[in-house]
Amino acid sequence: MNMLQKEEIKNRVQKVQKQIAHEQVDACIISSPVNLYYLNGYIFDGYMYILPDREPILFVKRPVNLQAENVEFIRKPEQLPELLQKRNLTVPMRILLENDVLSYNAVSRFQKALCMPEMKSVSAFMRQIRSVKSESELQQIRKSALAHAKVYQQIPSLYKLGMTDLDLQIEIEYVMRREGSIGAFRSFGENMDIYMGSLLAGDNAEAASPFDFALGGRGIDPLLPLGSANKLLKPGTTIMIDMAGNYTPYLSDMTRTFSVGEIPEIAHRAHQLSISMHQEFMTFLKAGVACSDVYERAMEMVVENNMEEYFMGTTQQAKFIGHGVGLEINEPPVFAPRSREVLQKGMAIALEPKFVLPGIGAVGIENTYFVTQTGLEKVTICEEKIIVLQ
Amino acid sequence: MNMLQKEEIKNRVQKVQKQIAHEQVDACIISSPVNLYYLNGYIFDGYMYILPDREPILFVKRPVNLQAENVEFIRKPEQLPELLQKRNLTVPMRILLENDVLSYNAVSRFQKALCMPEMKSVSAFMRQIRSVKSESELQQIRKSALAHAKVYQQIPSLYKLGMTDLDLQIEIEYVMRREGSIGAFRSFGENMDIYMGSLLAGDNAEAASPFDFALGGRGIDPLLPLGSANKLLKPGTTIMIDMAGNYTPYLSDMTRTFSVGEIPEIAHRAHQLSISMHQEFMTFLKAGVACSDVYERAMEMVVENNMEEYFMGTTQQAKFIGHGVGLEINEPPVFAPRSREVLQKGMAIALEPKFVLPGIGAVGIENTYFVTQTGLEKVTICEEKIIVLQ
Repeated sequence: MNMLQKEEIKNRVQKVQKQIAHEQVDACIISSPVNLYYLNGYIFDGYMYILPDREPILFVKRPVNLQAENVEFIRKPEQLPELLQKRNLTVPMRILLENDVLSYNAVSRFQKALCMPEMKSVSAFMRQIRSVKSESELQQIRKSALAHAKVYQQIPSLYKLGMTDLDLQIEIEYVMRREGSIGAFRSFGENMDIYMGSLLAGDNAEAASPFDFALGGRGIDPLLPLGSANKLLKPGTTIMIDMAGNYTPYLSDMTRTFSVGEIPEIAHRAHQLSISMHQEFMTFLKAGVACSDVYERAMEMVVENNMEEYFMGTTQQAKFIGHGVGLEINEPPVFAPRSREVLQKGMAIALEPKFVLPGIGAVGIENTYFVTQTGLEKVTICEEKIIVLQ
Repeated sequence: MNMLQKEEIKNRVQKVQKQIAHEQVDACIISSPVNLYYLNGYIFDGYMYILPDREPILFVKRPVNLQAENVEFIRKPEQLPELLQKRNLTVPMRILLENDVLSYNAVSRFQKALCMPEMKSVSAFMRQIRSVKSESELQQIRKSALAHAKVYQQIPSLYKLGMTDLDLQIEIEYVMRREGSIGAFRSFGENMDIYMGSLLAGDNAEAASPFDFALGGRGIDPLLPLGSANKLLKPGTTIMIDMAGNYTPYLSDMTRTFSVGEIPEIAHRAHQLSISMHQEFMTFLKAGVACSDVYERAMEMVVENNMEEYFMGTTQQAKFIGHGVGLEINEPPVFAPRSREVLQKGMAIALEPKFVLPGIGAVGIENTYFVTQTGLEKVTICEEKIIVLQ
């Protein structure tokens, strides 16, 4: 890790330390892989114990040879009081924990081990500070987006007549890995199962999924009901490709639409509307704008064009048109009617106005943008028109 | 779903209903994808509300067009009391919830929505009933194991001189998907991040990982510190391949060892010891045997052969030699010194006595077995000797 990265990580920890003071608690324990990575630059199995006025202590279960400052090896949370006392630190009476990601039993065990301190959640705060990116974080998203575009540019050469949607997805996954995809695709929450992204061909775009993504798809197995359905790609239909941008720890998010041969005029119109909405977003969105207003503005354009019945699905319509991206694919803010978030400079967001046309398939694009004082900077630079596969 | 599957699912729900009576609670709510799949045959976003004496009610958020009996569509848990009353059902005063998988905040929200019922965890019980498989579940593991072996048999043809460990892994992943891998690789718990399995070449097998798998590896990114390290495959070293058996919802688990050219005699001796341990396991293990005794027996054989310092790692040594497999890769029972579990007929288990030799790499094999009254049935049938890649 270089000096700049060390400085940045120190700043992040200081934000948590300020929150400890603000919430009037004694300490904060971080134990989820994503937040440990954010606050240390690496992942370990254990507990990062943050106090308001000194260096954090890393209580480490694994790896057993972790080389870092202020490490204390530990086997189980019940050892915490003893190990704290050994360092002349008192057992906390009020504490911040990651209550949105730790299981109920894990939190209860911590509480009991620490003699039942008063407890508050730090999960929403962590997601909030992570939503505003530093220059080096934005740089990593840029790097992911470059690889992302390089992979999508190869899609026409991967297509062969007689392929299924799954065949094409597998070829894309292979190219992704060859171009540096790290495989892991992190999401937040309990209904976000996915594997390397989603490819929706033809009417499969109408299939409603249990998961909380913009669109659905039947999937190839009832254990993962999302995306490709292992059906032949049919002339006159579209293929919407929304595969992971997981080429660095920081994700880019990008959707492009392809067609098998020619498709009806309405599909081109809907696709062009999505592109026009992105053009409008580029200046409408900037620091200070309410995310709910972005959703409203998008809906206005959809209604003006009489496209409501196709917007964000048919059978099941998603009630958001975009979200933050970073270490996880669904970070704050969310662009939904009741969102109370306001755009800030340095946020990385993905906007995805999409339409599903029965008998044809999904159309539209998704881009990743950075929020600036004056508008948006587009990061996913890649042909936006529908590309005909043949 | 055929009649047999319907009958089986009904039996599983009846077990939960008996547990409701046994725990003297009023109802059980299931909401995790894996347990919803186990108790319904499909996944939805919502709550399966199980009462001791009638058909379960499915409170469904998504998909919005779910076709099933006894469905009630819902937006949020706060609607539960009203929807229960509409069906002339009382709001429960004591309840079972999945406290090992639901987040603390999710559980707290349920509790509040249901007017603070007394609460017990159903997580351990669900894992326990899932650990004993029906004939149709065993059949799915057999099917996964067949595809698993078919993929491993292709590995020698995938190897090319000058490859890195990651190159080889990517080629294997591609063949896995072509042979029907569903991608998703489900694990239980908070420190089990992995993507499609692990490949450990040479000294990378010594690298300690934060995650709770048998062996480690550096990984290609600090966000996923496990497995392949993107290093050239070197003559005189081994490649241990432990990729996912995710070809049906039910996982097989299998490890095989390959070598780049010839490797030292000690590696062959350690590998043969692993094979001999498996031969011993085939008759030592049967219904009624304590899992801790299996661990003891394995350690005896390791000590007799003076191989302790290489067993289950060097830098970091795993303290288990096997585990149950099923919908998740780490189901009960666990073969560890302090395991209190006893083998039952119909359990599906994976045993993985492995050795890590500094300067050479990891050796040994892992097989999936079914527990019978008289011994073990081997399911992962595939060459067990070290195969030389050239």
